[in-house]
Amino acid sequence: VSTSTSQSAAAARHFAFIGGDNGIWRVTQAETLIGETLASAPRLEIAPAELPAGDAAAHWVLHGVTSNDRYVERSEKAALQAVQAGLGRPAAFCAALIPIRKTATWWAMTQDERREIFQARSQHIGIGLRALPAVARRLYHCRDLPGPQPFDFLTWFEFAPEHVGAFDEMLRALRATPEWHYVEREVDIRLARDGH
Amino acid sequence: VSTSTSQSAAAARHFAFIGGDNGIWRVTQAETLIGETLASAPRLEIAPAELPAGDAAAHWVLHGVTSNDRYVERSEKAALQAVQAGLGRPAAFCAALIPIRKTATWWAMTQDERREIFQARSQHIGIGLRALPAVARRLYHCRDLPGPQPFDFLTWFEFAPEHVGAFDEMLRALRATPEWHYVEREVDIRLARDGH
Repeated sequence: VSTSTSQSAAAARHFAFIGGDNGIWRVTQAETLIGETLASAPRLEIAPAELPAGDAAAHWVLHGVTSNDRYVERSEKAALQAVQAGLGRPAAFCAALIPIRKTATWWAMTQDERREIFQARSQHIGIGLRALPAVARRLYHCRDLPGPQPFDFLTWFEFAPEHVGAFDEMLRALRATPEWHYVEREVDIRLARDGH
Repeated sequence: VSTSTSQSAAAARHFAFIGGDNGIWRVTQAETLIGETLASAPRLEIAPAELPAGDAAAHWVLHGVTSNDRYVERSEKAALQAVQAGLGRPAAFCAALIPIRKTATWWAMTQDERREIFQARSQHIGIGLRALPAVARRLYHCRDLPGPQPFDFLTWFEFAPEHVGAFDEMLRALRATPEWHYVEREVDIRLARDGH
């Protein structure tokens, strides 16, 4: 029982973000901030998917997997959980998909070195906390997945249109941190849910 | 250039451990310590592989990916690097493949909670250090890979036959730690390289 539970939980952690002509999310804007650009696509479909899909019509497919916390400590997690909102709120029909890749230097660092930059020097958690509960967020990891992975992380955000300012302010603050010196590719894709 | 370098590095990080009739490693012993057993296999092949292989002749295939450090800090890494040996030493023709799965409770913990158990309470790094340089080690991650993954980690060890005692002592010490309360499946497969 333990085995099958873990395995179905694992299956539900893998998702494909498919840029193309399908999906309930309409791309409203796309900007390459650092590094190589990503092909444009009119719509985005998000589907549970374990393996690279052979979707010939897709402009691009990015895979990601949700996973355990890598940096957050218990007291920080408690602070986040006390205020955060979940995905799928009807009023939060604006979204952003922000794929990021970090440098080889970042990945060669030990855990304490990465945590020092992430939190002590960059206040990553505190900056994110200021945008809660307006902005809902889910992080997907790509770096260890099979296949050529153009990004290390995909972060998905949802917010109501009146909170786009708070969202942009959060991004502005994050992009000014020492942590962002280690970002070598970043694309910012804005979307709206069908019907809006 | 940066893109293609990162992508080929990623490709070389994925491996398949194939239990069956092929490969230079002969299985000399296999023991299930915790949880479900693994089918027996006479030999082991280790091959670079990104995706689950359809090898009908294989008794089992376990996939793993090398990745960044998850717990080790810089001072600990320096201590390890000062004494550790690499894989492939001709005299180190004994090997062990130890697949492990940890509990849902382990994975629900935050980074500081896991680190506290891993090192402050279990001295995982110190126990491993005592077996260096006799025992060479490489860790592969499985938990976030696609497909049903029966284990979270595969650890591969190589040592000369005169160091099997030091290796067994290291395992005995690790298995007695608080960290091992969170291990829900563990198989210990011993092997010898062809010609020995």
